[in-house]
Formats: sequence, C-alpha cells, structure tokens
Amino acid sequence: MINIAVLGYGTVGSGVVEVIEKNKEMVNKKAAQELDIKYILDLRDFPNDPYGHKVIHDFNQILKDDTVTIVCETMGGTGAAYEFTKQALERGKSVCTSNKELVAKHGPELLSIAKAHSCNYLFEASVGGGIPIIRPLNYSLTAEKIEAITGILNGTTNYILSKMEREGADFEEVLKRAQEKGYAERNPEADVEGYDACRKIAILSSLMLGKNVDSEKIYTEGISKISAADFAYAKAAGKTIKLLARSKTVSEDEVLAMVAPFMIDKEHPLSMVNGVFNAVFVTGNMLGDSMYYGKGAGKLPTASAVVSDVIDCARHPGRVIMCFWEQENIRLADVSLEERSFFIRARAGFQKEIEEAFPGGRLLCLEGREQDFGYFTPVMQENDFTGKYEALADRVLGRIRLL
Amino acid sequence: MINIAVLGYGTVGSGVVEVIEKNKEMVNKKAAQELDIKYILDLRDFPNDPYGHKVIHDFNQILKDDTVTIVCETMGGTGAAYEFTKQALERGKSVCTSNKELVAKHGPELLSIAKAHSCNYLFEASVGGGIPIIRPLNYSLTAEKIEAITGILNGTTNYILSKMEREGADFEEVLKRAQEKGYAERNPEADVEGYDACRKIAILSSLMLGKNVDSEKIYTEGISKISAADFAYAKAAGKTIKLLARSKTVSEDEVLAMVAPFMIDKEHPLSMVNGVFNAVFVTGNMLGDSMYYGKGAGKLPTASAVVSDVIDCARHPGRVIMCFWEQENIRLADVSLEERSFFIRARAGFQKEIEEAFPGGRLLCLEGREQDFGYFTPVMQENDFTGKYEALADRVLGRIRLL
Repeated sequence: MINIAVLGYGTVGSGVVEVIEKNKEMVNKKAAQELDIKYILDLRDFPNDPYGHKVIHDFNQILKDDTVTIVCETMGGTGAAYEFTKQALERGKSVCTSNKELVAKHGPELLSIAKAHSCNYLFEASVGGGIPIIRPLNYSLTAEKIEAITGILNGTTNYILSKMEREGADFEEVLKRAQEKGYAERNPEADVEGYDACRKIAILSSLMLGKNVDSEKIYTEGISKISAADFAYAKAAGKTIKLLARSKTVSEDEVLAMVAPFMIDKEHPLSMVNGVFNAVFVTGNMLGDSMYYGKGAGKLPTASAVVSDVIDCARHPGRVIMCFWEQENIRLADVSLEERSFFIRARAGFQKEIEEAFPGGRLLCLEGREQDFGYFTPVMQENDFTGKYEALADRVLGRIRLL
Repeated sequence: MINIAVLGYGTVGSGVVEVIEKNKEMVNKKAAQELDIKYILDLRDFPNDPYGHKVIHDFNQILKDDTVTIVCETMGGTGAAYEFTKQALERGKSVCTSNKELVAKHGPELLSIAKAHSCNYLFEASVGGGIPIIRPLNYSLTAEKIEAITGILNGTTNYILSKMEREGADFEEVLKRAQEKGYAERNPEADVEGYDACRKIAILSSLMLGKNVDSEKIYTEGISKISAADFAYAKAAGKTIKLLARSKTVSEDEVLAMVAPFMIDKEHPLSMVNGVFNAVFVTGNMLGDSMYYGKGAGKLPTASAVVSDVIDCARHPGRVIMCFWEQENIRLADVSLEERSFFIRARAGFQKEIEEAFPGGRLLCLEGREQDFGYFTPVMQENDFTGKYEALADRVLGRIRLL
C-alpha cells in the first residue's frame, strides 16, 4: 500500500480524492498496488465531507510520516507550495502537482532536488490540464528532435475567441458574460493578457530543450485588442483567430518563444480547437506533425492528470523517471527578426497608403463594412513591418500575425 | 551500451536504423546509455549500404548473442515474425514491433511470454504509425476508465475520402490515382475494406479493456460504396464522411466494436483529420474527450515510434512495463442493436415511400441533382432500420451511419 498526502483541498485537491476513490479498482490495478489517501492538508475544516476526518493543518505531520511516499501539491502559488514541495522532495517523497506557476518559476531547482533524493517531481496537470502532453514529450517522442511546439494553452481565452467567432460579438461583451458564468476570473488579466499561456509554453519549451526558458522574458501579447471586425475579415479569408503559444528551436543555444493572437487557416488542425478545449501541436524531425487535444482545465480532467502522475510514481519507487532540465537560461531569439505575413485592418479611404507601405499584399473588402478594410501583407520581417505600421498612425485600426 | 538487432531491412527497418543514427545524441540521452545496432537480419545482401556490413542471414546468431537485449521486428507477417518474436522473448530479449497483424493475432500470448521472462513486447508503431497512442493509453490515461475510442486508423482510406471530398471525384477514380502514386496497394482490399483499421481497433480495444478483442469478429465495412454524390449531400448538411473504427465499453464483459464509414459533423475534431493523417479520439470517465493526431504511416514516423519503444526498453532493463491483456476473448455486442440516425440516398420520385418508412426524418434536396435526394432518419435501432431499408429495394441508392 502507498500512502498519499494531498496538499490543499480546493477544486483540484478534492478532484484528486474523487478520482482515486471513483476509479479505485482501475487506479490500483495500474499502480500495481493499493493507493490510500492518508492526509489532506488544508487550513479549513470539512466536518461534513466524507474525507473530513483525514484533514490536518500541520504539514510537519506529513513530512515526518515516513509511510507517506507521494504528495499531491494542489495548493497553487509559489509561497508555501514551494516550501512544502522542497521539504517533501528533500525527504525523498515524490511530489505531483498541477501548479504551473511553481513549475515555471522553480521547475529546474525542484527537479534537481528530486533527482538528488531519488524521487520525482511530476507536473502533467500543469500544462493543458486534461491533455496528456508532458508524458508524451517525456516518454513517447523520445526518438525525436522536437523542432517546434505550437499550443492553444489557455481555456478562458479560447472560450472567449470561439464565442466571438460564433456570435460576431466583441471582446468586452464576451468577457463580461464569461465572467458571469465563471469561465473567466473577476480579474482576468493572467488569462486574457497571455501570462498563463506564457508560463505553460515556458514549461514545454524547457522540456523540449533540456534547458530553462525564463517565462518572464517571453514576448507575450494578449487578446484584448481583437475585435468582432477582425473575425469578420478572418472568416471571409477562410481563417480564424487563436491565441497561440509558440516555441521553435533556432539552434542548440537559442529558442524563439512567444505568445500572441494569430490568424490561422481553417484547414489547420488547431483551428478546430474550440471552447474550453486546448491542444498542443508538436513538430518532430522524424515524426513530422502530431497533435494532442483535450480539456485544458476543469476539476476532474486536471485531477485525473495529477493521479496519472501519482500512478507513475507508484510504479517507479526510488527511480527518477522525469527528464529534467538545466537551471541555466537558454537564449531567447528576437521575435522582431522573424519573418511572416500580417493582417492589417485600416480605416476606409487609406487603401493607397497601405498598398504603398506594403506593396504586393492582398486587399480584402467586405460588403456592408464601410468604415474599414482588410489587407494581408507579403511575408516580411516583423521589425520592418512594425516600423511601417506605426508610421501609418491612426490610419490603421489593428494588426494580427499570420501563422 | 545496449546492442540491438533489427529484423527485416525494408522500409520500416531501414527507417529504424536511420532514426537511431540521425538522432543519435538525443536517443542516447533519453535512453541514458548508448544504443548500438549490432545486427540487421535480412534474406538479401546490401553491399552498397553504409550498414551493409551488419546484415546477417541467420536469426540464431542474434538469438545466441546474449549481448543483444533488444530486437526490432520490422519484418511483418505472422509466420517467421511470430517464431522469431517468440524465441527472442523466451530468451529474455525485449521485442519492439510495427507489425499490427502479429499483435492483433498473437498479442496476448506474446505479452504473457514477455512477462514470464521479465522483458517487454512493445508495439507503439503498430497502431497509427506516428501517433503516440499506445503509450498514452498505457502511461497517461491510467487514472481513467476509458469509455470509448473512435479512430481514423487507416491512412489510405483517409487519403481517398479526403480527395473525394475535395475534388468531388468518385471512389474508383481516386483509388486508381492513389495506386499510381503509391498511396494505395495494387491489391487495396486490406485498406479499403477496413481490415487494417479493424486490426488496429482490436489492439486498442484489448488494451482499453485488458481482455482480448478478436479482430475477426468485429463488424467491418469498407468505403468502396461511398460515392461523390454522398459527399455532395454530406457537404450540404455541414458534414463529411470518414472511415471510423469504434469501440465502446458496454459492460465489464462486453464491448461494442465496429469499422464503417460514418457521416460526421464538420464541428467534430475528427472531421479535420485529412489526407494521410490519422487520429484517435478517446473518451474517459474523468478526463472527458482527448484526441491524438499524427501521421498514420510512413517510413520515418513509424520508425520513430519503434525507436521510442526501444528507448523505453533501454530505460527499464529487466522490468515489465507494458499493461498486458488476458487471452480470453471478450464478448462483442451486437452492432445491429445500436441506436443511431442514418443518411439515405434514394432515387428521385420515391420521397413519399422514404418518408413513410422513416417518419420524422429530414429531407435534403440539392439543386442541380435531379436523379436522387437525401434523407436523414430519426434515431432508430440498426436492426429496425435495416429491415425497412432493404424492403425499399432499388428505390434506395445507399446509406451511411451518422455518428
């Protein structure tokens, strides 16, 4: 029997208990032994909860109990969660987490502590909730040089963009409704400004490269400037708009990483990823393209991913199974040197100026829209584009990168 | 160092050598030691091949060499491949294969021989070539009760159907062109009649259930009756047509498995899987839906999957890592008792008869098509449908199930 402690009895933590209990037979079979939840750590009491009697308030009790070999950290944050994780790993207890903030901030340190103490720090649930992606990268694509990863990694923004596309509604309006329904936080900044997706692509990139990608240095642009008008033009061009988190190996020492809204072709598999679903598109040098799709968040999908990590730990007592990455930061390539095509939405009447600034592009006028027009530039360096775009000042209304 | 033998130096076998050589550094890092190809078994000689000096003709040389601990079986077939695999496993050598025929026919036996000799029989490449799906089922979805698997599992038929959809061409015409280009075999039966997809869904279902699903008993229908006209109606209804391999848990002792063309909604993620790409859509009781997408075949994608198995073996010397399934056959549910809606294409003039036979359905007439019309029946039992459909004799031109 393996004793488990769950840190934090909130949404994900209670989900972990639910998954282990509901799928007991399957979970024990896959773990090849019985898993038992011995402690649940929380500041609160849960007198009416069926597992309320397992709730304790002192982490030391868990730390000192040598029969507890696996800890699920579902508290979130980088304060107590960091301390508890570190202490558990130092005692040789494996830690399975859904805490992407902590993994993005202290991943390499915690991985090396785990390695030094022959236990594991696993975080399948930290990227893409219910999409198995960390383990495929760690176990399945092992014969591959991964060249690029492109992901839809945030459920809230994907829900908002999907709604905007379907209903022709504007950002503010859809965000407000999403907040009312609980699909977006009251302070939605971390999601809509792309910070959440940024942390996740930092984790995936670090795994891909074996070196640390500093999430704070990744170019990040959110979706708050995307409008219903942009979607009207995208639709007419057979495209849609998605918030993509991208990472591309430039050389062994350099990676290009960014988070930004992109216009993508309706033929691209990522264009089909709608609502709260997320997906990760991976390009390997032998395998070519592959894609992993699933629910990006939610209590049970996230908890199921945490429990799959617990099972993996249970199967490998005393063995380090996770590929770790070095603490050294890898160099990030300058996004502005990338070449691509851009979509511009501009005020009516300035067609000539736009065509002169970006010769050889493609004009897109929509019937019934008198106030603006669309324009697709030829492929050009972002630097070059930005200079010319900014010089057009208030003649232009917005721009979106093309994939 | 780990010595490897490759059995069969054809397309996949030479791909395995290529992947191990080209991605040497990455492969050795992931395997945590150096992998070396010691022997290549083939009947032919390859005097001009850079690895020609490794080619041998006698399997016993491999069998008796105790330094060879991993064997890649890329011969195909169920004759010599079966004998060699069995003998290798009995000597404690792990076997990694792309041979779906052999896995579907002798999987449980070979898995139990491997288990008895503390080695592994791995077959990631046998289902969906470059899509990592066996390992996610084995390692990632471990906390899940898998309720259903729906896959596009055959590249040739998916290529043909995608072409038919895009070009409005008929089956025979597209097949002929696919054969000319080498995308379809000269004898295309195994692909177009669904037998290949059937073997693959048998393997996935067996893994899902832990009991053997006999591929020869799975209801299997190919795509040769699908016409350009069917695609015209599908398109008008916002749908497309895909050859799906499905498996659904009915109870612990019973599974519903089938291979047949289905009309699916353009909103369904599987509708986006085009050309030689394949995908597996998995429904778990906690995770909900997830999907795995990639190249279903091809030299390097398939070889990459074989090598990922080799790496997994190298990481786990003397350890059984594969979930095995029992040899006992599980009961297959009667497909004709399933309930669903059907699309019917019928000869012009018989609208009344169709509506009387299947009241409450939806008529679909296309401008410019005088000779026939389409009709979507309400949800009904397949048994019931078939009786009524057959009674309409030559008034009907074809029928396709709806997902």
